[in-house]
Amino acid sequence: MAEPLILHEDARSGNCYKIRLTAAHLGIPLERRAYDIMNGETRTVDFLATVNANGKIPVLQIGDRFLPESNAACHWLADGSSLIPEDSFDHADMLRWMFWEQHRHEPAVAEMRFLYLYVGRDNLTDEQRAGIRARVANGEAALTLMDEHLRDRDFMLKSGFSLADIALYAYTHVAEEGGFDLARWPALGRWLERVAALPRHVPMDS
Amino acid sequence: MAEPLILHEDARSGNCYKIRLTAAHLGIPLERRAYDIMNGETRTVDFLATVNANGKIPVLQIGDRFLPESNAACHWLADGSSLIPEDSFDHADMLRWMFWEQHRHEPAVAEMRFLYLYVGRDNLTDEQRAGIRARVANGEAALTLMDEHLRDRDFMLKSGFSLADIALYAYTHVAEEGGFDLARWPALGRWLERVAALPRHVPMDS
Repeated sequence: MAEPLILHEDARSGNCYKIRLTAAHLGIPLERRAYDIMNGETRTVDFLATVNANGKIPVLQIGDRFLPESNAACHWLADGSSLIPEDSFDHADMLRWMFWEQHRHEPAVAEMRFLYLYVGRDNLTDEQRAGIRARVANGEAALTLMDEHLRDRDFMLKSGFSLADIALYAYTHVAEEGGFDLARWPALGRWLERVAALPRHVPMDS
Repeated sequence: MAEPLILHEDARSGNCYKIRLTAAHLGIPLERRAYDIMNGETRTVDFLATVNANGKIPVLQIGDRFLPESNAACHWLADGSSLIPEDSFDHADMLRWMFWEQHRHEPAVAEMRFLYLYVGRDNLTDEQRAGIRARVANGEAALTLMDEHLRDRDFMLKSGFSLADIALYAYTHVAEEGGFDLARWPALGRWLERVAALPRHVPMDS
């Protein structure tokens, strides 16, 4: 890893935190470059042309190459490390939870946090308000699925701590900022404590 | 691959088609087991307890192990094949498009098709109707991003045909069933023809 690594990020974003948390577990230094997504800083002509045509952060810059999508950046960083299981089925099962995170968990749990924390409950559009009922139901279903899964497991995979835990920890541990009462899911709560107690763990605001 | 492979699926689902298309490119036989998602067949007590607690298809059954999430199943099938680039950055870049597909493309392009084809334009709930404007805008943005990306590339990755193409082909090639006019994106159209012309390609209804 001779090339300098630059994380294009917003420090409040769980997706950006995933990459910092992965790098911390691996002891890999990252240079950080901050953007304010509420101020259009990831929508400038320059950002779209050089960093990410999709107008989103995080993007991990590896020398002169740019890698968008948080879970893909984590996978690149952790390639060959113990954060990715060697067994082919376990590897696919880890990706299964990471795809599920982006498809079912993030659009509900993280989006509710975005609406309440970034936009503000009093500033929601009618369209945002109309979507809340489904997002809350989907978020509760996602957290319930994790809670049931974690009743007889220390981590998301039986093989141990992996990127699946990092990907899901990022927005789950701040789900209360999106209005979800984590006390309802005790196995999930114990898993959150277990992840936070790992050596090398770093909090979101570090 | 001595263990029997069973695909739990709905033949009309693009997510299920991804797995069949991956298996076809690899020459791997799959046994198929059909469910009608509109009839609650993936919500039965038995399905939730044995196949997928998330109540979703596709699920790839490998002997007595179950792997949900279409892109994870494709990754397991293609592990070690030319459908996954060996280079670490290219591998992560492939995953980047597959995560993007589940996060930005599928919830817009596939969901519009679900609403128009499965539910029916005349049967939409008020909540479904309220979400259409954003889904159409997000779907158009996703197809535009792919079109721009494909203007100077034969496939999603410069290294060649990969799972990123399979994951994105599945719902893009039937986007018109969700109301998207593919004639607006000519580079995308040429890519669709290129993928469909590959040896071993199988159509969705095969």
